[in-house]
Amino acid sequence: MVGLDDVRAAEARLAGIAHRTQVLTSRTLDRRVGASILLKAEVFQRSGSFKFRGAYNKLASLTPAQRDAGVLAFSSGNHAQAVALAASIFRTGATVVMPSDAPEGKAAATRAYGAAVITYDRYTEDREEIGRRLAEKRNLTLVPPFDDPQVIAGQGTAGLELVQDAGPLDVLLAPVSGGGLIAGCAVAVKGLGSGTRVIGVEPETADDYRQSLLAGSRITIPVPRTVADALQVAQPGELTFAHNQALLHSIVTVSDAELIGAMRFCHERLKLVVEPGGVAGLAALLAGAVQLAPAERVGVILSGGNVDPERFCRLLHSISS
Amino acid sequence: MVGLDDVRAAEARLAGIAHRTQVLTSRTLDRRVGASILLKAEVFQRSGSFKFRGAYNKLASLTPAQRDAGVLAFSSGNHAQAVALAASIFRTGATVVMPSDAPEGKAAATRAYGAAVITYDRYTEDREEIGRRLAEKRNLTLVPPFDDPQVIAGQGTAGLELVQDAGPLDVLLAPVSGGGLIAGCAVAVKGLGSGTRVIGVEPETADDYRQSLLAGSRITIPVPRTVADALQVAQPGELTFAHNQALLHSIVTVSDAELIGAMRFCHERLKLVVEPGGVAGLAALLAGAVQLAPAERVGVILSGGNVDPERFCRLLHSISS
Repeated sequence: MVGLDDVRAAEARLAGIAHRTQVLTSRTLDRRVGASILLKAEVFQRSGSFKFRGAYNKLASLTPAQRDAGVLAFSSGNHAQAVALAASIFRTGATVVMPSDAPEGKAAATRAYGAAVITYDRYTEDREEIGRRLAEKRNLTLVPPFDDPQVIAGQGTAGLELVQDAGPLDVLLAPVSGGGLIAGCAVAVKGLGSGTRVIGVEPETADDYRQSLLAGSRITIPVPRTVADALQVAQPGELTFAHNQALLHSIVTVSDAELIGAMRFCHERLKLVVEPGGVAGLAALLAGAVQLAPAERVGVILSGGNVDPERFCRLLHSISS
Repeated sequence: MVGLDDVRAAEARLAGIAHRTQVLTSRTLDRRVGASILLKAEVFQRSGSFKFRGAYNKLASLTPAQRDAGVLAFSSGNHAQAVALAASIFRTGATVVMPSDAPEGKAAATRAYGAAVITYDRYTEDREEIGRRLAEKRNLTLVPPFDDPQVIAGQGTAGLELVQDAGPLDVLLAPVSGGGLIAGCAVAVKGLGSGTRVIGVEPETADDYRQSLLAGSRITIPVPRTVADALQVAQPGELTFAHNQALLHSIVTVSDAELIGAMRFCHERLKLVVEPGGVAGLAALLAGAVQLAPAERVGVILSGGNVDPERFCRLLHSISS
């Protein structure tokens, strides 16, 4: 199991490399929610999301020989860009396997960080098979998106910094996809000895983690449809589930309309660009989905900002018309 | 004339009231421009723009009797919201005179801060006359948008903080409308004894300040058409001109398309919402309108973020199609 020491070790590796992102506050938000909200702005993180923390920590934990041989990732999203950037910092190669119908912008962003992008047909080819073949042939090390101790420890530094910079929290909210971010953050805040209630947020159509925690074992759902492209995982990770089962208070869910409404709030009030998955914690607060005592101190991870203007505009238009 | 001491006095009045906004950096931006860019994010200022600094400093400088009688402003934009918020903090009344065809969002935002909004027909009524009558009848004090020593000193705190937090600058870029922001910032950075080149940025259709500095006297142009609604002033202020004539290095101009392109850059790369007028300094850098030596340290005031999502989307669409 990952412990606070692992998160602190990740913190040391990331010092001066990852951005120590700001904690933002808003009087308007506090009034509206009736609590003191502390927003960890991971939209300002390198590569545009918290994913850089885990990816870099994983690469930093490899032996030099492993690292120099290059790394491999499966992703069409934030993890792809994070691995590509981390590899470029270590001056090693990254190969990212992406479905051929992934948005061109995501492939372009990943290539811009220097990674080789290999596409596959998601309907006829098996990406695991492709990855295994590549990894063997080229001696590449896989960087998993969430189910890995070093990745979990890296993501936990977001929670650690939030408490260091903002003080103890009564509640911590973070989006849940594979469960790595919230597992790492829970390890950090619980490890610091506080009684913080760590609450995960999922799209209501992508509630595999909520169902799994209720059932007491990992449940697989059909690939969910949601505007939160970063949260479309169908099953909890094995290692993340073990942590989250022990450490989470609960999971709440939000609708797509609530996610988009929270993106609008970020634009109008906070002047921040936050992607649909990144805004889940704030959406839960604005929707009243989290039970709070008056004046509680609530940390929220705004986990990523990778939504291009065209998609941002389409999403906002989709619920206003 | 306003001096560094006046800016320092404003700094003391604003302490704990205005936000000390972050200075943001971007490796992508530095690489693209070939310099070290330090972005003062006044989009995070209370009321959504730097205007709060000057408005609050002006109200704080009034006698209690003046202040308690209430204040008056002419504005349909950021100054209106700033005066309304400053008055609410002092628990006094603000009356804002706005054209009846001002965007409903701006009137609503001003009312939301507790101000009384009085509208006039800009084609048949004289706003000065309406204001004078109101001010006399109700004993209100006018808070000018730029041509006032306390307003200039207040705006200067943005430049002062930038140098305090980021260190000495080779160049400072700020948008120019009535000229209060750049005058105050020039007083601050020049007063600190540095050789900073202070460069103003105007829309190319709204270059009254550029023309006036070249001519050596204040020139009035027809009310300019530009997407930068915050920069549509037709003539330099009298007091701001006296300062800017003495302190500015030059004025450069940018096109509407360059302003909108810079807004896109802020969204995609910085994850920030910046309004068309607020992004002028960055637009000038991205357009190559500012001559820089390699690795110079360039401060940029991102002066406001009050652009609602609908207008943001319309503007971006207007140049992509």
